[in-house]
Amino acid sequence: METNYSKYVKQLSKIADLEHSMAVLHWDKEVNLPKNGAAMRGQQLATLAGITHELSVDDNFGNLLQELTQNGEELSFKEKRNVEITFENYNKEKKLSKEFVEKRSLITTNCYQAWLDARAANDYAVFEPALNEMVELKKEETRLLGFKEHPYDILMDEFEKGATVKQFDKLFEDVKTKLVTFVKKLNEKPQVEDAFLRLKFDKDKQWNYGLELLQTMGYDFDAGRQDLSPHPFTISFGAEDVRVTTRIDEHNFANMAWSCIHEGGHGLYEQGLPSSEYGLPSGKYLTLGIHESQSRLWENNVGRSLSFWKGQYENLQNTFPEQLSKVSLKEFYKAINKVEPSLIRTESDELHYHLHILIRYELEKALIEGSLSTKDLKSAWNAKYKDYLGLEIRDDNHGILQDIHWSHGSLGYFPTYSLGSFYAAQFFHIIKKDTPNIIDQIESGDTSAVLSWLRTNIHAYGQTYNVDDLCKKTTGETLDFTFFMNYIEDKYSKIYDL
Amino acid sequence: METNYSKYVKQLSKIADLEHSMAVLHWDKEVNLPKNGAAMRGQQLATLAGITHELSVDDNFGNLLQELTQNGEELSFKEKRNVEITFENYNKEKKLSKEFVEKRSLITTNCYQAWLDARAANDYAVFEPALNEMVELKKEETRLLGFKEHPYDILMDEFEKGATVKQFDKLFEDVKTKLVTFVKKLNEKPQVEDAFLRLKFDKDKQWNYGLELLQTMGYDFDAGRQDLSPHPFTISFGAEDVRVTTRIDEHNFANMAWSCIHEGGHGLYEQGLPSSEYGLPSGKYLTLGIHESQSRLWENNVGRSLSFWKGQYENLQNTFPEQLSKVSLKEFYKAINKVEPSLIRTESDELHYHLHILIRYELEKALIEGSLSTKDLKSAWNAKYKDYLGLEIRDDNHGILQDIHWSHGSLGYFPTYSLGSFYAAQFFHIIKKDTPNIIDQIESGDTSAVLSWLRTNIHAYGQTYNVDDLCKKTTGETLDFTFFMNYIEDKYSKIYDL
Repeated sequence: METNYSKYVKQLSKIADLEHSMAVLHWDKEVNLPKNGAAMRGQQLATLAGITHELSVDDNFGNLLQELTQNGEELSFKEKRNVEITFENYNKEKKLSKEFVEKRSLITTNCYQAWLDARAANDYAVFEPALNEMVELKKEETRLLGFKEHPYDILMDEFEKGATVKQFDKLFEDVKTKLVTFVKKLNEKPQVEDAFLRLKFDKDKQWNYGLELLQTMGYDFDAGRQDLSPHPFTISFGAEDVRVTTRIDEHNFANMAWSCIHEGGHGLYEQGLPSSEYGLPSGKYLTLGIHESQSRLWENNVGRSLSFWKGQYENLQNTFPEQLSKVSLKEFYKAINKVEPSLIRTESDELHYHLHILIRYELEKALIEGSLSTKDLKSAWNAKYKDYLGLEIRDDNHGILQDIHWSHGSLGYFPTYSLGSFYAAQFFHIIKKDTPNIIDQIESGDTSAVLSWLRTNIHAYGQTYNVDDLCKKTTGETLDFTFFMNYIEDKYSKIYDL
Repeated sequence: METNYSKYVKQLSKIADLEHSMAVLHWDKEVNLPKNGAAMRGQQLATLAGITHELSVDDNFGNLLQELTQNGEELSFKEKRNVEITFENYNKEKKLSKEFVEKRSLITTNCYQAWLDARAANDYAVFEPALNEMVELKKEETRLLGFKEHPYDILMDEFEKGATVKQFDKLFEDVKTKLVTFVKKLNEKPQVEDAFLRLKFDKDKQWNYGLELLQTMGYDFDAGRQDLSPHPFTISFGAEDVRVTTRIDEHNFANMAWSCIHEGGHGLYEQGLPSSEYGLPSGKYLTLGIHESQSRLWENNVGRSLSFWKGQYENLQNTFPEQLSKVSLKEFYKAINKVEPSLIRTESDELHYHLHILIRYELEKALIEGSLSTKDLKSAWNAKYKDYLGLEIRDDNHGILQDIHWSHGSLGYFPTYSLGSFYAAQFFHIIKKDTPNIIDQIESGDTSAVLSWLRTNIHAYGQTYNVDDLCKKTTGETLDFTFFMNYIEDKYSKIYDL
């Protein structure tokens, strides 16, 4: 017999099929698309997006959700949560008129094109009018969606359900005081040597070594694959087909290696989501912050640790004897953890990284509040880089034009990157506490206990618990910045002999 | 202002976006899919197919087509034709109930699985019950769709609009008398030498040479790409992204080379369809027979001609000096045109090929008429191979189980393969007549005049004219088997010194 809940599952499964189909088209666009195919591919994606949207805001579906909510007593805890989350999303989506959604799509297309043009011209002035239009649109969106305390809250909510300015102001206050103070101390110490990381590392060998890294982490190649793309990313077509991409620069080994590990971390999360919950909130990643916690945990807490390389370095030296046979493990470890302020967010070390995010957070908040205009944005950007990182911005491409996010209208996205690192530190602290021999295991080359903990405590739940509840359930408390500071202070005091 | 015709164009464009999205998912399935991804991919494809079907048989769309047909006087010739064809397809699709379509989908899935199982067991008995169910289903389909003279007509119509048993009986009568007689003469002559084609040809070099062949033909890599897959195929995501695949066997150079040229011919057709007519009949390939005429013309009339290799052989010898430096052009030309009866259709020479098709045509017709049962099908198959090709069938995998088509329910498909060769001969005859220096050009390595003729006379029209009209328009008459026989007799009399 078909119950309301099974009807609901069917509809979500259909929507998921469409979303994953879009994901395939998107992946193919980034990995395979011949030059002339872009326009038609854009149109095909738009058609699928339109159909998906129609299914998601369908009135009959709304009625079904209403009925399920009213008769929720027949449902299990997980089922109730699923319906609750879907109904929330439904009601949110319903607040945006078709006209607004179409306008948004148009403005986004224009804004992205303006960003491309501005990048080509290396000139923010080319981007500014379109960005201004985008910011006004996002302000309208905050009004349509409604917000309780701060309009930026509802923008962050899109990427990190429940995130608030109140929470982030506190978090970034810690970044500004504790982290900045610590980083200043490091910057006064003699610098470590990392020139050997920019020797020539053969492309094919790098490719194969990247695959080995993924295998070491436990990434399942029967349920995924790696390909090359200009910007590395992870994408899921369902838990049984989760793909990662990487890029290879023959003179930047670190770029390939830690991008592999980073995307591998994202990939493991998606492969670990319960495929029995296909399309349901309980089968989907929780928030972008939690997604990023998975990639950062593998990239930094595991992948830039001395223990990990104790288990891996001999193999790496054997793969690249010319470049590394004379480099000791300790020298290698220091090099891959070099701390140095730099202009580009994505090339930053794991400490300065959060200053890049802090800057973007403050600027976005001010734009949405209306206390900063896009006209003044560039000078504000440049001033903050001088202030927080001590750097002069050379040109717009190395400054305000470096990120794609604003051109897509993804305001409220950046803070989730920092959140990911902070959650990662807290999770990894507990993993070590929960698993007595874990460091020995990692040093012997076996990271399976890390994956196993993440599978059980994070991946298996999907969205069944909200972020705070999940964090409490798995670590005993909600997010606490202290874990990150402890991790950083302990690690870098040793590397820089503080 | 939105006219009825522009509404119609919009709907067809949406349907085409869905069809091309399915094509991307299908391509990815054949080329990239990780092992565990198959089940979910099947489900995603089924969801897209369901949505596409709903859009295609939507009642409002039917009303729109009705109105457009009644007020056809405002439309151009091409627009009228588009509406006419779409309405025909709509009415045909409407004759099949949702229940029938669902049953068909189920039976097809079962039948394909049974075929895989039978292949693994090398035993037709494993396949027979499922095939019987399929044949009964196809009989039901002929009743639902309705037919004028012969139930097999309406099955062929799916692949070759307007094809009839009457026409094919005549065509295959010619095959049986003229072609079989000629082939017998050849089989009495001393055989040509082709052992050097099975020396080891390096995989990477073969891959690169395949790309060169495609480039020589004029295949546009800005609007397509080549990849590897177990079974070579061509697929279009719109005229600006048409992909081909090939396979490489290090000990069978010919397999790669002529499969490349064959798929390249299909690819050129799709790349040459007018992209301004996206989704409309005027922007789609005409019939499978015409599609096959494009691949066969390039594969055989061009790609197995002495003229073509006069222009290409030196480069081929330079690419594979070890294998070919001591083989003369004439020896090479004879080897690639060796005539020899063989058990497998896809490995057949261009003469025996049509005996393979003849056998399938006669068997399918008898199955659908009800004069042959699936129980007796194997002995009928084996008897005909003995009769027409003089061969004993070793086992079912080299006999009745060799083709995938029946397991998909594609009864009525095979005859289009022969049709393709016959059209190709007629087209190529006219190309040579229309283009005085064409043989000189081809001998100098330049085949652009061939492509140019096909672009203008075939590709540009899509479905604007039906097959008979197009053939008359471009060659002055409808299909005539004589062109094929003349081509064959002229070519092979020389090769075999008749």
